[in-house]
Amino acid sequence: MKLDIFNHIFPRKFYQRMLDVAPKGKDMHKRVREIPSIVDLDARFRIMDRFGDYAQVICLGSPPIEVFGPPPMSTELARVANDGMAELVGKYPDRFPAFIASLPMNDPEGLLDEAQRAIGDLGAVGVQVFTNVLGKPLTAPETLPLFDLMARLDLPIWLHPARGAEFPDYQNEKRSHYEIWWTFGWPYETSAAMAHIVFEGLFDKYPELKIITHHMGGMVPYFAGRVGPGWDQLGARTSDIDFICSMRTPLCSARARPPSAA
Amino acid sequence: MKLDIFNHIFPRKFYQRMLDVAPKGKDMHKRVREIPSIVDLDARFRIMDRFGDYAQVICLGSPPIEVFGPPPMSTELARVANDGMAELVGKYPDRFPAFIASLPMNDPEGLLDEAQRAIGDLGAVGVQVFTNVLGKPLTAPETLPLFDLMARLDLPIWLHPARGAEFPDYQNEKRSHYEIWWTFGWPYETSAAMAHIVFEGLFDKYPELKIITHHMGGMVPYFAGRVGPGWDQLGARTSDIDFICSMRTPLCSARARPPSAA
Repeated sequence: MKLDIFNHIFPRKFYQRMLDVAPKGKDMHKRVREIPSIVDLDARFRIMDRFGDYAQVICLGSPPIEVFGPPPMSTELARVANDGMAELVGKYPDRFPAFIASLPMNDPEGLLDEAQRAIGDLGAVGVQVFTNVLGKPLTAPETLPLFDLMARLDLPIWLHPARGAEFPDYQNEKRSHYEIWWTFGWPYETSAAMAHIVFEGLFDKYPELKIITHHMGGMVPYFAGRVGPGWDQLGARTSDIDFICSMRTPLCSARARPPSAA
Repeated sequence: MKLDIFNHIFPRKFYQRMLDVAPKGKDMHKRVREIPSIVDLDARFRIMDRFGDYAQVICLGSPPIEVFGPPPMSTELARVANDGMAELVGKYPDRFPAFIASLPMNDPEGLLDEAQRAIGDLGAVGVQVFTNVLGKPLTAPETLPLFDLMARLDLPIWLHPARGAEFPDYQNEKRSHYEIWWTFGWPYETSAAMAHIVFEGLFDKYPELKIITHHMGGMVPYFAGRVGPGWDQLGARTSDIDFICSMRTPLCSARARPPSAA
């Protein structure tokens, strides 16, 4: 049997709410919502039937839920999404043996509550987060407690890229050209988020922490020969370490450990 | 025989001039200039001797020459560098069968003159450029004529990454953390520069144009399955195409050709 563990879906009620709050779509919004099988179950099942003994662990598609607005809207959207996915799993257990919860990452309290509700009450097998939270790293102080929770529950965090055209590739640009933000930017940002999780010391704190990264680990497997020896040489530094430490203190001592080379 | 075609060196006189104009080094400046063999020929030859029948095509190391200051300083530094490399090739033809010219990319007139002087008078086999010119793409109007020249001369452009810590990985960051700008950022920026060269239509204009990219093409070979089918689907667009066209007109019609999918 093939179990596909990273499949996007929009439960019907969530889809409708999303169109209500964000009727116009562009870039990923438009691309994702115009795929018929993202919401139409018949269309999806017709595709799935071509793959024989095959089932999907489902999660929402792009964009991250917090993009639609601040709490309580994002928090409510996450509830609607998780309720909808749980319903699909209940109704079609052979098609969808499990789902991954969405979280309102711009609601520091609410996201923990919703993770616990989705996992404890609805049976989610993990949570999906995106590689940035409205422009901040996942390891910002507000969202760091999610890692504590998921380590304690011993359930995985699915990590999906989120970069958009508004992130430029050159310092004098206002935005990325030619969709480079998608083609190269998604694996790049996945890799940057992975590096932040490592250097923030989360695997030191939780050796059993489980992260399931989009598209096989971004750039990391392909650049193992650069990443490994490179960081062995460079260490955990950021060259203007004092500047960083003045901004964010909690893990600064871990981050400021002396690199192996200047 | 092994011919290594992308080797960094600082000819002694250039090295001294560089230390005069930029006595303090950080990040790539410091890393590169503290490698003994970058300037010490005895140290270099001892290493080269370990590889048997082996020779190096030489070029300058990071950073790009224009980082040191505006013309005439950058233009003069490029002359000193190219004179120095030509002298090394003349003196040690078995070690260094050829050199690649450095150019003052912040001097639109001067860079073309220096490319012609280095190639015509000094025998350079091509030119080295970096993936951004003080934050601008290589395909900015000021530097685009270099591609015309190199296509006409039928000589290659060596393309080296240039991203530094000042380029953040998240929109709310002021700078890249943990040296991600180097580990993942160099292959990323190499790939972004390659995409700009392609979508600017330079291979349509000059099918024989020769670009030698750093580290085997950045991300492109490893992400061929994403890059090919992805761009086949996305086309050459930038989603806010009108915005782009209002900024840069010369090749806008080429860039605005309809993508195969919305």
